Amino acid sequence: MTHHVVDALISPEGRLDILSKSEVAKLLDTSQGGLYSIFRNCSLAVLNCGNALDDGKELLERYKPFDISIIQRERGIKLDIKGAPARAFVDGEMIKGIHEHLFAVLRDVIYVNDEINDNPKFDLATSEGITDSVFHILRNANVLRPMTNPNLVVCWGGHSISREEYDYSKEVGYQIGLRAMDICTGCGPGAMKGPMKGAAISHAKQRIRNGRYLGITEPGIIAAESPNPIVNDLVIMPDIEKRLEAFVRTGHGIVVFPGGAGTAEEILYILGILLHPDNASIPFPLIFTGPEESHDYFRQIDHFIGETLGSVAQRRYKIIVNDPERVAQEMQAGIKEVRQFRKERSDAYYFNWLLKIDHDFQVPFQPTHENMRNLHLHKNQEKHLLAANLRRAFSGIVAGNVKDQGIRAIEQHGRFEIHGDAAIMDPMDALLASFVAQHRMKLPGKKYNPCYRIVK
Amino acid sequence: MTHHVVDALISPEGRLDILSKSEVAKLLDTSQGGLYSIFRNCSLAVLNCGNALDDGKELLERYKPFDISIIQRERGIKLDIKGAPARAFVDGEMIKGIHEHLFAVLRDVIYVNDEINDNPKFDLATSEGITDSVFHILRNANVLRPMTNPNLVVCWGGHSISREEYDYSKEVGYQIGLRAMDICTGCGPGAMKGPMKGAAISHAKQRIRNGRYLGITEPGIIAAESPNPIVNDLVIMPDIEKRLEAFVRTGHGIVVFPGGAGTAEEILYILGILLHPDNASIPFPLIFTGPEESHDYFRQIDHFIGETLGSVAQRRYKIIVNDPERVAQEMQAGIKEVRQFRKERSDAYYFNWLLKIDHDFQVPFQPTHENMRNLHLHKNQEKHLLAANLRRAFSGIVAGNVKDQGIRAIEQHGRFEIHGDAAIMDPMDALLASFVAQHRMKLPGKKYNPCYRIVK
Amino acid sequence: MTHHVVDALISPEGRLDILSKSEVAKLLDTSQGGLYSIFRNCSLAVLNCGNALDDGKELLERYKPFDISIIQRERGIKLDIKGAPARAFVDGEMIKGIHEHLFAVLRDVIYVNDEINDNPKFDLATSEGITDSVFHILRNANVLRPMTNPNLVVCWGGHSISREEYDYSKEVGYQIGLRAMDICTGCGPGAMKGPMKGAAISHAKQRIRNGRYLGITEPGIIAAESPNPIVNDLVIMPDIEKRLEAFVRTGHGIVVFPGGAGTAEEILYILGILLHPDNASIPFPLIFTGPEESHDYFRQIDHFIGETLGSVAQRRYKIIVNDPERVAQEMQAGIKEVRQFRKERSDAYYFNWLLKIDHDFQVPFQPTHENMRNLHLHKNQEKHLLAANLRRAFSGIVAGNVKDQGIRAIEQHGRFEIHGDAAIMDPMDALLASFVAQHRMKLPGKKYNPCYRIVK
Amino acid sequence: MTHHVVDALISPEGRLDILSKSEVAKLLDTSQGGLYSIFRNCSLAVLNCGNALDDGKELLERYKPFDISIIQRERGIKLDIKGAPARAFVDGEMIKGIHEHLFAVLRDVIYVNDEINDNPKFDLATSEGITDSVFHILRNANVLRPMTNPNLVVCWGGHSISREEYDYSKEVGYQIGLRAMDICTGCGPGAMKGPMKGAAISHAKQRIRNGRYLGITEPGIIAAESPNPIVNDLVIMPDIEKRLEAFVRTGHGIVVFPGGAGTAEEILYILGILLHPDNASIPFPLIFTGPEESHDYFRQIDHFIGETLGSVAQRRYKIIVNDPERVAQEMQAGIKEVRQFRKERSDAYYFNWLLKIDHDFQVPFQPTHENMRNLHLHKNQEKHLLAANLRRAFSGIVAGNVKDQGIRAIEQHGRFEIHGDAAIMDPMDALLASFVAQHRMKLPGKKYNPCYRIVK
Repeated sequence: MTHHVVDALISPEGRLDILSKSEVAKLLDTSQGGLYSIFRNCSLAVLNCGNALDDGKELLERYKPFDISIIQRERGIKLDIKGAPARAFVDGEMIKGIHEHLFAVLRDVIYVNDEINDNPKFDLATSEGITDSVFHILRNANVLRPMTNPNLVVCWGGHSISREEYDYSKEVGYQIGLRAMDICTGCGPGAMKGPMKGAAISHAKQRIRNGRYLGITEPGIIAAESPNPIVNDLVIMPDIEKRLEAFVRTGHGIVVFPGGAGTAEEILYILGILLHPDNASIPFPLIFTGPEESHDYFRQIDHFIGETLGSVAQRRYKIIVNDPERVAQEMQAGIKEVRQFRKERSDAYYFNWLLKIDHDFQVPFQPTHENMRNLHLHKNQEKHLLAANLRRAFSGIVAGNVKDQGIRAIEQHGRFEIHGDAAIMDPMDALLASFVAQHRMKLPGKKYNPCYRIVK
Repeated sequence: MTHHVVDALISPEGRLDILSKSEVAKLLDTSQGGLYSIFRNCSLAVLNCGNALDDGKELLERYKPFDISIIQRERGIKLDIKGAPARAFVDGEMIKGIHEHLFAVLRDVIYVNDEINDNPKFDLATSEGITDSVFHILRNANVLRPMTNPNLVVCWGGHSISREEYDYSKEVGYQIGLRAMDICTGCGPGAMKGPMKGAAISHAKQRIRNGRYLGITEPGIIAAESPNPIVNDLVIMPDIEKRLEAFVRTGHGIVVFPGGAGTAEEILYILGILLHPDNASIPFPLIFTGPEESHDYFRQIDHFIGETLGSVAQRRYKIIVNDPERVAQEMQAGIKEVRQFRKERSDAYYFNWLLKIDHDFQVPFQPTHENMRNLHLHKNQEKHLLAANLRRAFSGIVAGNVKDQGIRAIEQHGRFEIHGDAAIMDPMDALLASFVAQHRMKLPGKKYNPCYRIVK
Repeated sequence: MTHHVVDALISPEGRLDILSKSEVAKLLDTSQGGLYSIFRNCSLAVLNCGNALDDGKELLERYKPFDISIIQRERGIKLDIKGAPARAFVDGEMIKGIHEHLFAVLRDVIYVNDEINDNPKFDLATSEGITDSVFHILRNANVLRPMTNPNLVVCWGGHSISREEYDYSKEVGYQIGLRAMDICTGCGPGAMKGPMKGAAISHAKQRIRNGRYLGITEPGIIAAESPNPIVNDLVIMPDIEKRLEAFVRTGHGIVVFPGGAGTAEEILYILGILLHPDNASIPFPLIFTGPEESHDYFRQIDHFIGETLGSVAQRRYKIIVNDPERVAQEMQAGIKEVRQFRKERSDAYYFNWLLKIDHDFQVPFQPTHENMRNLHLHKNQEKHLLAANLRRAFSGIVAGNVKDQGIRAIEQHGRFEIHGDAAIMDPMDALLASFVAQHRMKLPGKKYNPCYRIVK
Repeated sequence: MTHHVVDALISPEGRLDILSKSEVAKLLDTSQGGLYSIFRNCSLAVLNCGNALDDGKELLERYKPFDISIIQRERGIKLDIKGAPARAFVDGEMIKGIHEHLFAVLRDVIYVNDEINDNPKFDLATSEGITDSVFHILRNANVLRPMTNPNLVVCWGGHSISREEYDYSKEVGYQIGLRAMDICTGCGPGAMKGPMKGAAISHAKQRIRNGRYLGITEPGIIAAESPNPIVNDLVIMPDIEKRLEAFVRTGHGIVVFPGGAGTAEEILYILGILLHPDNASIPFPLIFTGPEESHDYFRQIDHFIGETLGSVAQRRYKIIVNDPERVAQEMQAGIKEVRQFRKERSDAYYFNWLLKIDHDFQVPFQPTHENMRNLHLHKNQEKHLLAANLRRAFSGIVAGNVKDQGIRAIEQHGRFEIHGDAAIMDPMDALLASFVAQHRMKLPGKKYNPCYRIVK
């Protein structure tokens, strides 16, 4: 099978259209240095949008000769692209949304990196410093908007879901959009695309012209989850942990659709944070939902949470099966409380400063075989710390499933080994087995080879 | 089955928000007089959007107690609505797009009617007078936009089409939208909705915020083809003939998808006009298209046209099967020629003044049993006049199939009888039979009882 | 002295950019028929802006060869202009504001005229019909804006005023603009220009980008009072009476600066209306103001009103000398009451429907020698009718002073003779004498020859 | 004389409305530290706008109790103001333009300062580093706009000029605005205000709604030259040299009106740069202009330049007396060349990167008595270096005339002594004497005590 390719030279829009000489020099430098491959691969992922392909490695191999570089002009810069997937173009002209995404990559992967790494302002060793850098990246991407009422619903869920689940996520997005709320997702396919499509239709019906479709991704996942061009605000956070922090600090509520390991990671992340004693009184609407068929799925999730984190965690979410309208109504009511709460404390609407995020949840976790083997998965610790460790376990499994680096590590060293208390390992094993059985680990049509082994 | 209903009081937007005292009095008068039932029924159709129901009569019977009236206020007017379908509302508030459509009904059915009928300016007995009234209605609806390049693609096709055909029409709309063209349809379901949905997605990807989704309908058909709220410019023309004239004078090119009798009517209308000697040199891109499965369908249509109107008619259109991208590209190229042509003659871009439309195509045709019986369907006449008569035959069948009045007439007097030369009747019979066989006469799931009988 | 001239061909903007063929034909017809000279002269007045010249006759004689005509194009119309004053152009291109004004002339003098005169809807023999036509002209000019809070301050006063008075009017406009109110005037020089200039500066300081500078004029006065291009909404009403009605129905309050006969006419008009029993409870802020030097002037006006219309009339206005800030504050407070009043009665904010204007104030008064001689200026009538007659007397004097037709009539037949009760004639004589003494009848530097004679 | 004062608490707009916690902390810190008095004094200057007062010291003494501080809120910051001049408010509400200016002060004096001083990116010891910081400050102030054609005319000239000169500068601004060009000045009174007022009127006439009135000032001069609220983009550069660099890098041409020592400084600055061999081929329209009376003034300036910098310098400017229209036309033609030049070299339109500015012109000059005494004012050096030194001499005199610090230094140590070659000192002496004679050193009504002594 041939993959048509196109060459192009494109000009920046927005944030990078006014650069100083020294910034241009720095960009050239950084883009050709150690960050080159991240920059190239994220760019390729963006250009590949619309292609159902959840395998970072396969994408990279398909477009091996693809190359992108910055061209210096007195007046600014241009991007020189060679061998780009043809579907990013219409009659030779790049689709506007993809054009924007490409510069979002440059902005977030290269430009912001230069700003943060060279800058003594950001002490990434501290919790405050990490939060500050998350804030800075989001503000630089023009994602933080003052003078706007809270209305951003984060939608989480699998990239590999059934047609019924996809249609359901679309309907939930539709009902959310009808109520003038905006959508934020991880911007890949499946449950990340459905709600945006749905909201796009209802925003059109409600004549909401400035609806936001915010996509938050990171270099490791973007190849597997190419942003849809409907996304009209794209941010590439440096790593998973900052991506997750970006979700919970900018979003005003979260809807979780069925998914696999990645979704479990997200659930454990938000529950871990909400379980922190400092966050006990902070309102944060959290709804798990899916179509009729997902009844069992959520029962399993709920059971797993009950077994590991207990009923205090279970009280933090609602499970609503097969009722998109109620999901949207509950979310709207929950966000109203969020607004009230922030107003009383005169906290910003656009960034959840008050939410305490433990350093444990912020430090990037490297899913090496060793780190995976050494995870503390026993009951003898505070609930929010256990959540942090469980989160890491699932994070490693996502890497082994769909990320370029993870896949290569598994190919080389065999499966990850995960140890822990039987009281945790048993429900975890059961949950993972059900994900496999339900084809939630990979896109349909691909056989799943587990990348982990539970050692009890 | 119960149908939930809601009462509401709503304020005008746009054209009707500044009325004089005497205009308000006139509106009250007209809306309560002879036009009341048209006004009420069109309003009900608009409120019923999103419901798959192509039967005007059934709609009216389902919401019998529905009532709408104008309330006078010193400051202007309000609409008082009783017993409206609940799905037009979100948590008690009417969907914005439907709200706009409702005032489009008031504007076009009542207000414009007052303006035209009382006004010696419009001599509806002449061809010029009819064209003038079409122009006036469209301008009053703010549909004519100066300073804009030609980019409006009219999409015709059936309301009752297969899933494949629907998806295909969506894909064509997507490709049209990718190329920054806008969509105009009859604003019902099926081939009228697909292209708009597709274009809405590609407009979003191309960051086109002011994409137009123009719906042109008429009181007789609106109940069967409720406008989708995506339609952001809705016009209700007084009758079928003015609706057709509005399509061909505002659109810059036409795409025809598979359909039934209504689509055949539209094809005969545009071909009849293009066959007029005065229009011989006027460029007018016309493309018949559908998915792979529609190959036979278009072969039949093409055959029918060849048999009845001859090869000169066949030269006026292209048939493109299963290639949405090429459809969009050809349309774009065709519209470029239209632009060039109008520029050279300094004709308006927003209204095709130069197109000659014979009086025969403008005079409303009443599909009574007698009129249907007396149609001149023989070869012994100019091609464009034969086209006019064939158009009338199909128009009558549409009425008998889906319009309230038509259905009642058939119930009372039996099927329409259609006479004519065998050389015409035979291919016509074959074509209609194929429509029936392919379920193109009614929405799937409904048994079709033919409303006509071919008498050779 | 030579007056440079320029030829040009210009395209319409706004209201007249989409015309039907029959409308274009009608425009051509009307513009070449009986209305040609009004159309031509108003156009010339607009093009002559910025020239201190208050003599309609002189203007017309200066640019005798000036000609304007409508050119028909398929796509619409153009204006063909020959011999236009060069100062309307910058390096060959017409100033945008003047361009707009020129099409306002075409719209109001020709197009609307066609619409109203041919239309049975407007019965100009009745009070309602006249008000309806005033409404129609204003709406057609896009001057009536719904969804806007009352904020339009009408400024009246002389075109020939002292430097101090001019600067004072500017300062009042400045203070009005600082408080986010808009300005409406007769759009000539002097007290009609000062407030707009002042408000333009304060609107800029308050970052009000959509400030309105509404000018309302009529064909008889426009030559003497060329609209300043700052005016961003220009309306040419058909006659003085409709112009005055337009002022009081669209404005939310009135400030009167010192002036001559025209200002006296305006004062008598508004007082006559406010004295009508039906209007007794309608709030209408009315302030007479000027700099320190105008103290005596307003004492005289107040005295004249007291003598003729009595203290009930005097209670309808406030005199504020040399305090621009207080003028603006009082106006703001007054308009707040207007808003409250209309809200309670749900009357429109953009048009004062509730104000009763007697037919006597609406019927055009022809200032012939005979009509002037026969005015009923005696105390034996209701106050508001006496005001109507006094208004007519001053209206005639304005015509004799500055209007082309009036000046020619005086040249031919000698001065107007004005009769009446001594109790009215004496204060009137005194008032007029003071106007002459204060050079309020003509621009400075011109000797004033009275056009009237008081006969007691 | 009492000066009314007001207290207020105001919220940020624009750049400072989204701050991180650490930025807020830093702002609080910096604003209370060493920069407090600069911050306070610039804020006071902005609040004092509209007051004819060109004496920084007098202003500070008049409002001694004035205080401004930053209040921290979770949601961001507020400014707490005590004892502000009442004229900055309308009925208790701060004028919007002044509100914006106040946050421009905070942004430029505190926020940017934090960004630049803490940041290794900016090496202020190098020419590139200084230019980079100028660029950064301007971009941060949103003054650099891509996608815009060159149209920014810098207007220089005295703050203390005659009524005729002021009116003339207004007329030049008017003609510039008529041709759709924007204005940039030092934003004080006199020749800095006139052109903006003029352009505001012509922009209104040309319906240019986004006209720019860019004011560039610095902490030392702002008190003497309070920005007019018409200025809709205000930037406070850290020192005179960066302010001058900002003028020549953002402006596309310069008009110089009559002025005193400050104007001479500006003339020497731009000529010094244009004389640099690297800039020989760079187009830069430079026009000296004034009303009829300024004929002698410009003869003297021209003579002084001829004597000191020679005819090569004289070829860089045009002197146009009493012809505002020609000034605007020449400027327009010159800017057309600038556009052509930048286009060919693909240089930015919004920042003149190609202009070589010698380090000598960038290093801040401290006008101490010693530095003034040691200036190298002899012919034995390159012309552009002589220009740099002459520039410093005049800069010192400006400080001694109107700046708080300079005035205090003169009060303490007596007049500056300026040494140099007689061939330079003689024409300089003559020029300064003429400035004194023409009251160009201080606002009229104030006696001028020279702050310098020419030592030949």
